[in-house]
Amino acid sequence: MKHKIYVVGIGPGSEEMMSVQAIRILEECDVIVGYPVYLNLLKERFGHKEFLSTPMRQEAERCLLCFAEAGKGKKTALVCSGDAGVYGMASLMYEIGGAYPDCELVIIPGITAANSGAAVLGAPLNHDYCVISLSDLLTPWEKIEKRLRAAAEGDFCIALYNPASHKRADYLKKACEILLEVLEEERACGFVENIGREGTKVTVCSLKELSDAQVNMFTTVFIGNSQTERREDKLITKRGYRL
Amino acid sequence: MKHKIYVVGIGPGSEEMMSVQAIRILEECDVIVGYPVYLNLLKERFGHKEFLSTPMRQEAERCLLCFAEAGKGKKTALVCSGDAGVYGMASLMYEIGGAYPDCELVIIPGITAANSGAAVLGAPLNHDYCVISLSDLLTPWEKIEKRLRAAAEGDFCIALYNPASHKRADYLKKACEILLEVLEEERACGFVENIGREGTKVTVCSLKELSDAQVNMFTTVFIGNSQTERREDKLITKRGYRL
Ligand SMILES: C[S@@+](CC[C@H](N)C(=O)[O-])C[C@H]1O[C@@H](n2cnc3c(N)ncnc32)[C@H](O)[C@@H]1O
Ligand SMILES: C[S@@+](CC[C@H](N)C(=O)[O-])C[C@H]1O[C@@H](n2cnc3c(N)ncnc32)[C@H](O)[C@@H]1O
Repeated sequence: MKHKIYVVGIGPGSEEMMSVQAIRILEECDVIVGYPVYLNLLKERFGHKEFLSTPMRQEAERCLLCFAEAGKGKKTALVCSGDAGVYGMASLMYEIGGAYPDCELVIIPGITAANSGAAVLGAPLNHDYCVISLSDLLTPWEKIEKRLRAAAEGDFCIALYNPASHKRADYLKKACEILLEVLEEERACGFVENIGREGTKVTVCSLKELSDAQVNMFTTVFIGNSQTERREDKLITKRGYRL
Repeated sequence: MKHKIYVVGIGPGSEEMMSVQAIRILEECDVIVGYPVYLNLLKERFGHKEFLSTPMRQEAERCLLCFAEAGKGKKTALVCSGDAGVYGMASLMYEIGGAYPDCELVIIPGITAANSGAAVLGAPLNHDYCVISLSDLLTPWEKIEKRLRAAAEGDFCIALYNPASHKRADYLKKACEILLEVLEEERACGFVENIGREGTKVTVCSLKELSDAQVNMFTTVFIGNSQTERREDKLITKRGYRL
């Protein structure tokens, strides 16, 4: 029998937003591997497990750690925030896993920041939507620009991940400038910081205002489509029901 | 104090894939309102609650029912499959809710079919992605075509909802023909039927094969981006790590 390795999406942060399945699987595991920030979120409930981690940017090493632990016969889970398959480790685990035919990967989905953040804002993604990351660590910026243009031209609702980091303080501004080539300045937008964690903060604004907004790496940004309306601190994208 | 109405995403089907929060809120409610198929999924655990529903297409009536029940002082939840804000009832509740200032809406997110289906296929959405519905009940087909073209031109991974119904048996074929104007016939694709429910069925195929595939209204369809690879019954979208 193959060693199963679970790649588990733990949702935005609070244990309440994990799936029952994710909790059960972490309870059953011997070792939980993950980025230190996420392991921290799990300390209270799963602190009795063996926790292993590697620093940021050492993603491949983190995957290798999982295959090594599973190879010792330990039941192993790799945790990701949100969903494991949305800018998470699922695909890298499959890439590296090609060299470990004795291991089998099982992906446990979780609520991704686009959807958990949308719930805080009301209903900003209640029609066709795009999810785009502004991080150019692994993606050339030209490709990100092209996707932003395509999303605007397609009149999609948009959720932006990784809108900023220390090195990329002006990326959201650059993205907004591209969107403003197609969309009007008053387009309804918003952003949510620390979804499902201490200090959740929600802001609703215009696209023009968004381009000067202060966001950080714990923020998810929402840009409405042509049917999205602002209502106090909510963003509502109408589906087109005749009322 | 306002009456709170909970709009709850219950995930793809099995109770295991609900969030802890969604279960807690349904446990606390007096009345659960929803489309009959979804109420059925909840019967086993929540059968002791009052269940109310309206037939398909009577979505506005279903919303009005919630406001009426909440107005009587009953703790009320409206359930949607997957996430409440992804082709779900969240935005219609806000639209109708404008006339009920004594009620407050609370949206409880859930795992949407794009992410739960992606987990079954491995990692098909592990980069920027679009979610598009092929239903033209509320959206003109021209708009859907435009979004399909934009998604293909932007090299997004794509998840298609509502790929078929009795009246729209050939919509997936029409969509594939549009995508094939931009994408190659061999583009890696797949689809999952009955995610998180009895009879889950997964298929991996080329875009050309997809255009002749038999899908139904319980299927979510995935189209890879230029970096997506097929591996047996999995779809892996590489993020671009150098290994
Ligand atoms: C590397 S991505 C990981 C995404 C994660 N796998 C998911 O599905 O949500 C990190 C980005 O996700 C978003 N994000 C993740 N968790 C968040 C939270 N609790 N609050 C706000 N944004 C969050 C932010 O945009 C952040 O920069
Ligand atoms: C009206 S939409 C509702 C989507 C739902 N709110 C969500 O977030 O998943 C219905 C479509 O969602 C997809 N879907 C929902 N649940 C599914 C499941 N369990 N298995 C496969 N597809 C599903 C199918 O494409 C279906 O035609």
